[in-house]
Amino acid sequence: MMEKIEHIGIAVKNMFESQLLFEKLLGVAAYKTEEVTSEKVLTTFFKTGSTKIELLAATHPESAIAKFVEKKGEGIHHIAFEVMDLEVEIERLKKEGFVFIDEVPKKGADNKRIVFLHPKNTNGVLIELCQEINK
Amino acid sequence: MMEKIEHIGIAVKNMFESQLLFEKLLGVAAYKTEEVTSEKVLTTFFKTGSTKIELLAATHPESAIAKFVEKKGEGIHHIAFEVMDLEVEIERLKKEGFVFIDEVPKKGADNKRIVFLHPKNTNGVLIELCQEINK
Repeated sequence: MMEKIEHIGIAVKNMFESQLLFEKLLGVAAYKTEEVTSEKVLTTFFKTGSTKIELLAATHPESAIAKFVEKKGEGIHHIAFEVMDLEVEIERLKKEGFVFIDEVPKKGADNKRIVFLHPKNTNGVLIELCQEINK
Repeated sequence: MMEKIEHIGIAVKNMFESQLLFEKLLGVAAYKTEEVTSEKVLTTFFKTGSTKIELLAATHPESAIAKFVEKKGEGIHHIAFEVMDLEVEIERLKKEGFVFIDEVPKKGADNKRIVFLHPKNTNGVLIELCQEINK
């Protein structure tokens, strides 16, 4: 079962401008900026209630975020659900017929192990499952 | 200031199929289905932590959701933030340069007064502000 929405990922072109924009919009400052070199993205996080907003900007033209922005423009990229046990949840969802983009969890931003469901089986919504490392 | 993410709205084509899909995905049953005649949509809500997932299906070809699905396909439609005082927040955001689609709040689903920001000023993200009625 999904514990909660851990964050919503938003693809942006210019991190500097978008960070200022979301600081104004949310009325809070970003609490962290982190580069995820394996994903070729720069990420910036905001807290809002018990959920986070993650801005994602490509650091390389081959980044999935660069391709997303090129194809669809800036906007909401994914929803991430926090789970207590990633392997248990992957197994449960596979039995329900869901398909994963990569079946082995990888290291994401903000101290998480993450995995993505294939959006063709989830109404076009890119869904990430994440579990805090060492928790 | 935004209190929290109240819900994420997801545009779907077939509410029956999508409700089953999200029940499997989230591991919980929907807690409410409600038609919003003014918006020409059927809505179905799921609780996940302190946030909700709202599925939206058009009940008429002229519905904004029908147009969205036709143009972009099924997927995430908007993020809704809960605010304590809608008028105060509208005023704050206008001063920051944000633009609203309709400046006068209207009645939304799930006992809320709602208003939408124009996505051209919010990185392509359609953002709703909502306030619980009589609270």
